[in-house]
Amino acid sequence: MEIRERDAGGRICRLNVKGKRLTTPLFLPVYNPSKPIITPREFKEEFKLEAIMTNAYIIYRNLESRRRAISEGIHRFLGFDGIVFTDSGAYQMFRGKLDVSQEEIVRFQESIGSDVGVMLDVPSKHENRIEVYESVLATARRAKEWYTIRRGNGIAWEGAIQGGGYEDLVELSCRYMSRYPFDIYAVGVPPRLWKEYRFTEIASQGVVAVRNLPAGKPRHAFGIGHPIAIPLLIAIGYDIFDSASYALYAEDDRYMTEYGTKKLDRLEYLPCSCSVCRNLSIEELRCMDRGERVKLLAKHNLYAILREVELTKQAIHEGKLWELAAIRARSHPALLKALYSTLVRYGRYYERLDPIAKRSALLYTGCETVLRPDYRRAVRRLEARLKTSIAPRALRVMWPFGQHESPVEIFRFDDRDYDDLETVRMLADYQFGYGVGIKLFPDNCTVEKSRRTGRIRRIWLEGKLLATVRPRDGFLLLQISAAIRLAEAIPGRRYKVRLIPSSKVEERVAIGGDVLGWYILEADPLIVPGEVAVVLSSRGKVLAVGEALLSGIEMGDINKGVAVKIRDSVGGSSHA
Amino acid sequence: MEIRERDAGGRICRLNVKGKRLTTPLFLPVYNPSKPIITPREFKEEFKLEAIMTNAYIIYRNLESRRRAISEGIHRFLGFDGIVFTDSGAYQMFRGKLDVSQEEIVRFQESIGSDVGVMLDVPSKHENRIEVYESVLATARRAKEWYTIRRGNGIAWEGAIQGGGYEDLVELSCRYMSRYPFDIYAVGVPPRLWKEYRFTEIASQGVVAVRNLPAGKPRHAFGIGHPIAIPLLIAIGYDIFDSASYALYAEDDRYMTEYGTKKLDRLEYLPCSCSVCRNLSIEELRCMDRGERVKLLAKHNLYAILREVELTKQAIHEGKLWELAAIRARSHPALLKALYSTLVRYGRYYERLDPIAKRSALLYTGCETVLRPDYRRAVRRLEARLKTSIAPRALRVMWPFGQHESPVEIFRFDDRDYDDLETVRMLADYQFGYGVGIKLFPDNCTVEKSRRTGRIRRIWLEGKLLATVRPRDGFLLLQISAAIRLAEAIPGRRYKVRLIPSSKVEERVAIGGDVLGWYILEADPLIVPGEVAVVLSSRGKVLAVGEALLSGIEMGDINKGVAVKIRDSVGGSSHA
Repeated sequence: MEIRERDAGGRICRLNVKGKRLTTPLFLPVYNPSKPIITPREFKEEFKLEAIMTNAYIIYRNLESRRRAISEGIHRFLGFDGIVFTDSGAYQMFRGKLDVSQEEIVRFQESIGSDVGVMLDVPSKHENRIEVYESVLATARRAKEWYTIRRGNGIAWEGAIQGGGYEDLVELSCRYMSRYPFDIYAVGVPPRLWKEYRFTEIASQGVVAVRNLPAGKPRHAFGIGHPIAIPLLIAIGYDIFDSASYALYAEDDRYMTEYGTKKLDRLEYLPCSCSVCRNLSIEELRCMDRGERVKLLAKHNLYAILREVELTKQAIHEGKLWELAAIRARSHPALLKALYSTLVRYGRYYERLDPIAKRSALLYTGCETVLRPDYRRAVRRLEARLKTSIAPRALRVMWPFGQHESPVEIFRFDDRDYDDLETVRMLADYQFGYGVGIKLFPDNCTVEKSRRTGRIRRIWLEGKLLATVRPRDGFLLLQISAAIRLAEAIPGRRYKVRLIPSSKVEERVAIGGDVLGWYILEADPLIVPGEVAVVLSSRGKVLAVGEALLSGIEMGDINKGVAVKIRDSVGGSSHA
Repeated sequence: MEIRERDAGGRICRLNVKGKRLTTPLFLPVYNPSKPIITPREFKEEFKLEAIMTNAYIIYRNLESRRRAISEGIHRFLGFDGIVFTDSGAYQMFRGKLDVSQEEIVRFQESIGSDVGVMLDVPSKHENRIEVYESVLATARRAKEWYTIRRGNGIAWEGAIQGGGYEDLVELSCRYMSRYPFDIYAVGVPPRLWKEYRFTEIASQGVVAVRNLPAGKPRHAFGIGHPIAIPLLIAIGYDIFDSASYALYAEDDRYMTEYGTKKLDRLEYLPCSCSVCRNLSIEELRCMDRGERVKLLAKHNLYAILREVELTKQAIHEGKLWELAAIRARSHPALLKALYSTLVRYGRYYERLDPIAKRSALLYTGCETVLRPDYRRAVRRLEARLKTSIAPRALRVMWPFGQHESPVEIFRFDDRDYDDLETVRMLADYQFGYGVGIKLFPDNCTVEKSRRTGRIRRIWLEGKLLATVRPRDGFLLLQISAAIRLAEAIPGRRYKVRLIPSSKVEERVAIGGDVLGWYILEADPLIVPGEVAVVLSSRGKVLAVGEALLSGIEMGDINKGVAVKIRDSVGGSSHA
């Protein structure tokens, strides 16, 4: 799994499953072969989906379909050549009697050629703590069983996390399940929490799971598929969603919107641009026969969910995910409460994951804005590193001090004048710690400014380039000479990433090659994505400097993809 | 013009133009025949639009198209058989030299058979107060000129309101323009205000225009067509929008969303369900040749605008327009500021227009919720009519006391027990004024409760039904006997609507016929839509009682449609 873009706790990842590429955030519509509403062909052709989910148990239960799935393989059986996730049917069995063993269903998923299978977990009804605790323990036993049963034939496996609204039990479940080499972790969100609008518990369950699972594995929210919840759950760190709700809601004449679900009889207009809504009037939809209406409503609902996923991906790309989550939270007060609660209780955790600067200005959306991790971190740094709560005017080049818009004052600025050297030292103090500026930029530095804009561009020392100010967000980008000064100026492992003892890796990085995840021996856990990282050899020699793309707590967990994008190195610069 | 549904200051209206029916809120895409991007045929067939706008001046300027438009008529000329609005070209001429007289352009609009024409107003650049003032005066002179020129051949005319961001000048312009019998009033929103994100001024200009123009005429926001602004502007009271922005933005590679406009090169995903976005990838869109891309982007943009209009209409239907405006305001802080400012400065005005209860629960969206007119009015009534700021628990059946959801406490309740008679008297005091309850419901009343729910249903006096509690929102619906008691209990014209001295009208209402707008001689201006209105004959005899569908300040201005829906009358009840 490789992180391509990120914002808040959310991420756009690429992963490979049986040689096929998958991009998350991902929504998987659940297809029930015994009750088809939208066909796999339509998922592929009309909705252009790369992956769907179906239920192995339902196929297995029926002898005829079992036989066909085994002989044809699940892809031909369904008529879908993309990625097929198969659920184990734990939830179906749980409602009736348990009539299939894990061995049978694991073997079946392997034999039909599923791309991603699910272990046979033990869900809970979420009735009380004891019952939930039992499901945590029973699922852990099942995981061990799965580990002995499964064969390594390329299928990716999902492990299930139980614990529901009991945070300590979720944590326990994560600890148990992390022992086994699952490829994806799926969090069982109790339907009861969703039905009762207990978004605060759904969110905190997600946060606890995200914190306690390995960062390099995708996190799947089982059975969640409603537009209103998607941005917040992605911001928390979920990557994959699946649901049959698009169809189940349709059967109940319910129309999904990102503002909530509307019963068809309360709908007077069709506020949607999808092909269903643009080609029909509400009267036509109401009068049509039930089968046809269910199909069209299911299509609309699926369009609404997919739109929300794309919207969230675009928000990650722009660095506006907190804003989208804040907008969407206005769809229901329970969701707003969940957002407040997540930010208040777990904001500190997200300060470690949320990129240090964003592509877009920070926009005020309401009082939750001052709880945002990116905002709080900026205020905290101001206090810790510049020893003030009133921002020096010099910081106005930096995100978010200079890149925010708000109808109320969320930063106070002094009105002192700062000369150029004072300014760059201030930026360095803010970026690296109190007193670092003067050590990084001695008195004989030269500050180069843009002739056109008058803004600081570069800092030189004795003819050597030390650092550049990134125009977009005002952050200092260091050259190797400055990185060496920084490594001396700051104690211990702060801002440092140490490579594994491999001369091949060291050589590659020393000539400017990017640091891949697996190169890393240890990393400062306080590094935030987007910050400067100084790369050391295993023996502590400065080799290169660049921009961390992973958070320090993720380094070591995520092996694929670039962890530190190198800007300059002892053996020469790749990005002059 | 007839109001069909309403919420906040917004309304869904039906109007007739040359025998064709039009529903507002309405967005008119502006079609430029000399630079067609989306064709009138596509507006009709693909977008199912009932009305478009084009520019009479552009057609007139070219001799060939002038000739054709006159001989064929504008509908055949365009190939569009719906409603055609023609702009006078004031804005085009204003940018170049003024080469056409008002007489020519008015005559031309008449001769090509426009459905709705626009006078030749004098826009301003909004450079300074004097220049804006001049445009107000010059436009008023033009209105007088128009009045002498125009012929009464069925065409509807729009009068233009100037004044821009200067509220007193907008008010002055409204006063001047109201002298003439325009069918629609179009407010000239200076492009400068839009470009500079001065939404607060755009909103206050709208409020001042809405307050100072006759309520029975549609209000058109000239040149506004962006999804982010539509909900707030409709909540303020605008009915019609027109813009070429869908096409102009497309020419500039800009993609509209309800969260703002994105330049194509900052877009990585297409977060939309429209046919354009579902059938293309962002890469395909970027690589395609310019002409084709502009057309597809224009279509997407138009879909985005139309979706927002439908969404707003649905919000009016559900009584959730303030919530939608609050959500949309999160798209940009300048819009949030405009919402705050509108509610703080003009909330009192909207307390007179906003229906007394809504179909949906009041949902908290942020601190603006406690500025909402429907919330503030409830708090104010509590203080004025029940002499308390802590709501009696008995009020919990009433909207919004019992029908709201909030993550923070927006109402405090006492924990007293109220007996049934106390409860209904409390409802009556809240609804009609301090001390009315005891007069309306004497001690020998019987309170009937639902066996199933235990909730109060009806109040009887000596075997006669006095009132019913509406289950949806807890408001008292009075029978005629209670209306007579109410008329005696409250002094003066409060809650009273007096009919014109026509025995035919009086007879019709006395046997339960609804009160149409034109039946009304005078009405209590403090009546709020959804409240009880007691209908009197011109000589002051109580004839009937029902629910006001119009606000007291609108009664007299709006002649078409039902003003008071009668529930019971002296001559018998039509809704038993």
